[in-house]
Formats: sequence, C-alpha cells, structure tokens
Amino acid sequence: MSQDADTSPAEAPELEESNLDEAHRLRHEFVESVLERLDAADDEGVRELVEQLHPADIADLFEQVDRERRGPLAAAVRDLLDGEVLSEMNDFVREGLVDELDNVQVADLASNLDTDDAVAIIEDMEAEDQREVLRALDPDDRAAIEEALAYPEETAGRVMQRELVSVYENMMVGDVIDFLRDSQDMTMEFWEIFVVDARHHPVGTCALSWILRTPRNFAIADVMKREQMLIPVDMDQEEVALRFQKYGLISAAVVDSDGRLVGMITVDDIVDIIAEEAGEDILRLSGAGEGDINEPVKDAYRSRVRWLVANLGTALVASFIISLFGAAIEEMVALAVLMPIVASIGGNAGTQTMAVAVRALAINELTRSNTWRTIRHELAVAIFNGATIAVLIGIGAALVFGNPMLGGVIAAAMLINIVIAGLAGVFVPVTLERMGQDPAVASSVFVTMITDSIGFLAFLGLAVASGLVG
Amino acid sequence: MSQDADTSPAEAPELEESNLDEAHRLRHEFVESVLERLDAADDEGVRELVEQLHPADIADLFEQVDRERRGPLAAAVRDLLDGEVLSEMNDFVREGLVDELDNVQVADLASNLDTDDAVAIIEDMEAEDQREVLRALDPDDRAAIEEALAYPEETAGRVMQRELVSVYENMMVGDVIDFLRDSQDMTMEFWEIFVVDARHHPVGTCALSWILRTPRNFAIADVMKREQMLIPVDMDQEEVALRFQKYGLISAAVVDSDGRLVGMITVDDIVDIIAEEAGEDILRLSGAGEGDINEPVKDAYRSRVRWLVANLGTALVASFIISLFGAAIEEMVALAVLMPIVASIGGNAGTQTMAVAVRALAINELTRSNTWRTIRHELAVAIFNGATIAVLIGIGAALVFGNPMLGGVIAAAMLINIVIAGLAGVFVPVTLERMGQDPAVASSVFVTMITDSIGFLAFLGLAVASGLVG
Repeated sequence: MSQDADTSPAEAPELEESNLDEAHRLRHEFVESVLERLDAADDEGVRELVEQLHPADIADLFEQVDRERRGPLAAAVRDLLDGEVLSEMNDFVREGLVDELDNVQVADLASNLDTDDAVAIIEDMEAEDQREVLRALDPDDRAAIEEALAYPEETAGRVMQRELVSVYENMMVGDVIDFLRDSQDMTMEFWEIFVVDARHHPVGTCALSWILRTPRNFAIADVMKREQMLIPVDMDQEEVALRFQKYGLISAAVVDSDGRLVGMITVDDIVDIIAEEAGEDILRLSGAGEGDINEPVKDAYRSRVRWLVANLGTALVASFIISLFGAAIEEMVALAVLMPIVASIGGNAGTQTMAVAVRALAINELTRSNTWRTIRHELAVAIFNGATIAVLIGIGAALVFGNPMLGGVIAAAMLINIVIAGLAGVFVPVTLERMGQDPAVASSVFVTMITDSIGFLAFLGLAVASGLVG
Repeated sequence: MSQDADTSPAEAPELEESNLDEAHRLRHEFVESVLERLDAADDEGVRELVEQLHPADIADLFEQVDRERRGPLAAAVRDLLDGEVLSEMNDFVREGLVDELDNVQVADLASNLDTDDAVAIIEDMEAEDQREVLRALDPDDRAAIEEALAYPEETAGRVMQRELVSVYENMMVGDVIDFLRDSQDMTMEFWEIFVVDARHHPVGTCALSWILRTPRNFAIADVMKREQMLIPVDMDQEEVALRFQKYGLISAAVVDSDGRLVGMITVDDIVDIIAEEAGEDILRLSGAGEGDINEPVKDAYRSRVRWLVANLGTALVASFIISLFGAAIEEMVALAVLMPIVASIGGNAGTQTMAVAVRALAINELTRSNTWRTIRHELAVAIFNGATIAVLIGIGAALVFGNPMLGGVIAAAMLINIVIAGLAGVFVPVTLERMGQDPAVASSVFVTMITDSIGFLAFLGLAVASGLVG
C-alpha cells in the first residue's frame, strides 16, 4: 500500500456509504437491486454489489432478504462469506446458513477466526455436524475450540479468546517491544498485554499506550497496573459485561480455578453482550421469549403461548372475582362499563413501577441497602398518580352517570389500585430476585394478576359496601 | 513502585472484593458499617472504609445511602471524591451532590477529567452555577468545555474527548514512538492514533498493536488502516453507539463539518450509552419516563402521570364500546364476567409482538426491506397463539356456563383479537418510526387501545350477532 497525497481522505468509506442510509442501514433500493440480479441468476453482478460492503453490512444483507433467497445469495458470494461476516450475523440467520454449507467449508471459515467467534458459529450446530467440523480443523484450533465448548454456554470460557499477549514480569519495556516485533504470527489486535509470574498467574496489566510512552530500559513491572479485574473462567457472561461496564475495562484476563491465565475477553465482544442483555429484559418482561424477528415461527409460538396461557390463568382469577358480583352488575350495568378502567390503569401503573425496578435490579442499582427507600419512593409516586387519576375519573363518572356516589366509588377504587400497583411493582421483582429467579421473566404475570384482581375487587366491593347497589 | 516477587498476585483486588458480594455489588453489611460510623460522626473511620473502594464502588455507595446522608458522607470523604467517582455516579445522585459542593470545588474536580466526563458533570448544573464553574477553570479547559457545551445534548460533540493523539501521514513508525515518549503531558489512555493530512483531515487510523509490531523504519501511512468510521460532530449518541456496535470499534475520530479532526470517542464511554439506550426502551415502552429509582418524586410523577392519563383516554374508548352493549350484559351477566379475558390476553399478545418489533427497530434489524416478512412472521405466530387460546377458553367457557354457543363466541373473539393484536404490534411501531417518532414511546397506548376495543367489540358484538343474546 503506497501513500498518495491526493487521495480524498474519505473516499473508500464514501463509496461504501452510498449503499447505506443515514442510520447506516442498507438502503432498500440496494437490497432490491441485489435481489433483482440474484433472480436473474447474474451471480457476477451480485458479487460486484456485495463486495463493496463491510462484513457487518454483508451480514445485514442476509438478514434483510427472505429465507429462500439466502442459499442462492450465499452461493453467489461464497468467497466474500468469511468468518467475520458469519460472526456478525443474527444467530437464527447464521444457523440457517451454516446448515446449508458443508462441514468442511464451516471448518475452513472457523479456522480463520478468534476462538470466541469460531465457537459462536460451531456451538449451535447439531452434535454430529459439530464433530465433523472439529475433525476437519487443524489440531491446535480443534483443541482450543473443544476446550471452549467444554465450558457451559454464556460463561467467560465461551466468550474469551485464547489468543493474547502475555509477558513475564522481569522483562524490560524494550524486550517486550522486540518480542512483539518478532512474533510475526500474531495477527489479532490487542489493547493491553498481561504480565504473568513463573506460574503463569497474572500479576498486572499494561495498556499499550503506556508501553509506547516509556523508554526501553524501564522494567515492565514498573509500568504495569497491579490492580486488575480477573475474570473466573466460569463466570456468567452477564456478570462479565457488568464488570466491564462498571470498571470501564477494555480487556480483561480470564483465569482458571488455579488462578492461571487462560484467555482474554475484549470489550468489542462485551458490547454485543451488553446490548443483548439490556435488550433481553424488554422481551422477557413482555413475555416474548427470545423475541427475534428471525426466530422460526414454531419456536416463537412455543415461547410466547406459554405466557399467554399463564395470562389466561390470571385472567380467570379476575373473572372469578367479577362473577362474585353478578347481582350487582345486573342491578347497575354501569359497573360493567367502568370496571375495566380501574383494572387497566392499575395495570399500567404497575407496569411502570415494575419496569423501573427490573431495570434497576439488572444494573445492580437496586440492592438490599436501598430497597426500602425505593419502596417509599414508588409509594410516593403512586399516591400522587393515584390521586390525580382518581379525581379525573371520579368527577367524570359522577357527571356522565349523574351519580356522585358512583364517582366516589370509582375514585376510591382507582386510588387503592394504583397504590397497590406501585407496591407490587417493586415487591414482586425484588422478591423474585431474592428467590434467585430472573425478575424480568415472571414479574409481569404476578403484577397483572394483582392489579386486575384488586381493580375489580376494590371497585365492585366498594360499590356493594357503600350501598350503591345491593 | 518496586517489584516484589512474593506478593500474592490478587492481593489488592481480594482486599477490595471482601466489601463486594458475588455480583460485585457493595455488601449490605459494608454499607451499614459506613453508615454507623457516619452517624457516630467518626469521619476518620468512614474514610478508612471508603478509601479501600474502587471509584466506581464509591459512586455506588452514594447511590445506596439515603439522600440526607449523602452530604455528610461527601464531607467525610471529600478528598476521595474525585472526578472519576462523580462521572461513574447515577445522574440524579450526582446532580444532588454537585448542588452541595461549592463551585470552586466542582471546577477543581472537572479540571482533572477528560472533556467528556467534565461536561457530563457540568451540563446539568443551573446556568449561573455553570458560569461560575467555567470562570474558575483554567482558560484551556474552559474553552474545551464551552465548545462541548455548544453542541446539542446527546450528540457526538458532547460525548467526545478533545484529548487524542494525531500524527502526520509522512511520519515513520519510529518518529511516532519518539513523539509519544517525548509528550510527557499525555496522561490519558488511548488505543488507536489518528493519522491526519496537512489540513488536519483524518486519512487513517492505526491500532497501537500494529505500531508496536512494526519496525521503526516503516512509514505510518503503510501501517494504518485507510477505511475508517468518521463520526460527524453533530451525530446523535445513539447512532454513534450503533456504529461502534456494528463495526466493533474501539475508538473513532470525530470530524467537524469541514472534515477536520476535532475529537475522539472511545468505546468505554459508548458502553454506558449502549446499556442506557437499550435499557431506556423498556422504560419508555412501559411509560415510565426516565425510570430511575433516584429520580425526584415530582419528576417521576410528572413523566408517569402523563401516560396514565393517556391510558385513561384509551380506557374510555373501551368503556364506550361496552356501554353500547348494556342491554346484552343485563340479559347475560356472564358476558361481563368473561369480557376482560378477551381484552387482557389480546393486550398481552399485542405487547409481545410490540416488544419484538420495537427491539428490532432499535437495533436496525427491522427495515423497509423486511417489514412484510416480519408482518407475515408475526401473523403466523398470532394465528397459532390465537387458535391455542381460543380452544382452551372456548371449551372452558362452554363447560363452566353449560353454553356451547357462549364458548364458540368467546373462542372466535379471542382468535380475532390475538390476530389483530399481532398485526397492531408490528404496524403501530413501524408506522411511528416512519413518521419520525420514537416507536418505544407511544406504541403501548395505541396497541392497548386497539386490543381493548377490539376485544370488547368482537366478544360483545359476536354475542349479539350470533343471537346468543338480544
């Protein structure tokens, strides 16, 4: 690559950007023209368009087109379909594509990747295909991947890469630089090097910028940072992500149970996990399972229908409560007209608080030390909210139905239900968390059951107790 | 700092970790003992405990204790309260604390930080305090911070730091290393250096690991990567975060409208934004506004009551529909008992699909190119879900009420409502996005209105149309 002073600085990116819209998504028109050429069996033309793209955008392209066209598209751009493209691809789309490749091709792709990316591709394959891919790998890659697969899914052992730079603590900065220059086979990028003792235990971490700024004759032990965040190999990836976020890490050493350095996790892998985990809560809280638009219909059905059936159960509880007040409703049909309002707004108020609590639990902001403060906080908000809505609906109902007593009953029921909703919105997720459950998964069902039941019970019960009916 | 071969490698972290639980949260007992000493006015004792903590954990400590105790705690550990602690702190907690410090102290803290962290502390202050802090800063820091504050909030200009390393394209690797060794005032960490031309336009990026591996007599222009992701200074921070995530960036150059290099954004700042943005959707979708347990009650009330009032509006629509069928309900009170089931499960099904769509839109997976595929996908899931729930509730209602016709009516209404819910769950957020609105903010209100209304209308309408009542 030679330098050309006249080259416009952003030339290459601009060329690429013309296929992307302002949000850096592939333009619809670009996708369409790829598909046109694909349908015309113009493989050369397809390749011409696709080769302009960044690997992450090639991955996006596969996500954008229909399932039936992914096979032909892969055939047309086979040589562009490297491991980087596969590792950037949505899990479901990649699984489908890997199924279509033969195992030797998969092995070929995997061998050009860091262990963590290779594992991501191989871990979802059928056991038999997986064995065949592993057999086709060279022994070193194979050993590294088999070792990674031995750790449970979603742990540091799966996410880490084995490729890293470690040096001994007695080396000088100059030795380290020479060592790096001599190791021509190191192709990966790295941001920190790990300093180890004779037993291969990490004793410090050294950012490359410190090494570059330090004269050659300084000891590496005097440049390195001794406090370091060591990640146990069996730590859950969500925990790892929280550590990276909390301590602003760029990379971290992974150690086995004997404290020996076995791998490295870098922030670029963690960014995806952070985004995934933060995004998962919204899906879990809504009972949408994996919640991916690329998830096969039968998987989406299985994970979602479960929550709808659970919701059917809680709705039956609410129905049962209504059925206790059949006579009251027959006497005053306005009760049937108004009762869903009390339940629905209570449900919304509960969902608001629950979302706040689930989020605070997920990022470790809500702990034993401030649970009571949080409950007091949510209670105060609930009282203000409840009072506001109670006044509005109370006056409205009194006017519309010409019945001040009815207005008073619905106002009181509304206030009660919103306050209970606020408390349930904190208590339910906190209790689930203390019991070792994921608060995002089951909170909704319980909170909805509480707000529906209390909504109907308070409103219809007060209607009877106040002498409005019966 | 001298090297001691006998030092146990993990000694420092272990000492610190004893105050943290398995999820790296501060132990409740530790927080309690800090508070005990604080209440006993044993400031020295408080300091002794707190000084063992990492800055991120000191920030957590302030979040854990009650508001009234944060002032005294700050007084006791004043010298430990550096800019790093403040920049790690929850926004609301920091704002409260900064209010209690005098402006010269704030200026003192800010001057030790990178621009982006200093801006984060200063941007939320009252205009007058802000001016006073700026006056107390030295001219260089002041100019940098004022320039940052001139960019709109949540743009690249606010998030970037001005401290960065740029070199000219005609330099040799050896020149760059010498330049770095000579610049003793550069205290920050950096991971890549930016190569610029004579007009200060970026022409390439060079990872430090490449520089370290390359002999001194190579031209930097031959080592650098020419394709780079340039961030315009006015780009929204959420867009910036998506770029970092999509292209796996560690740092990126920020350019002004003339294409000149004006700053750098690093992934550690982006990690927080990614987590924040991904987490915000769950709060927005639930109508919980900022949704922070540290948000002042009156702010939380203001942002949440708005959505409850909007929900009151949609609930009134549903009530109006019920009121049209008053005679039918009087004739058969079982309708009033069963109708909330149809609305509630429809609402849940709609929320599932909506969560999936909002998430897919947020990460740019749902685009014009695959909207129809997504609608077909969600429709298929909805038909399976609807059929399952319809059969369950249909048989159940027929048996419980001894009325097969009632079972048929509720089954049909359930299927209709779940299918409509599935379609609305995609259409509503996609339409809002096309209109330039944030789909997470308003989708819920519309989807709930649709599922409630259709639920009551389909069930009660079919009951009348089928001749079950009337």
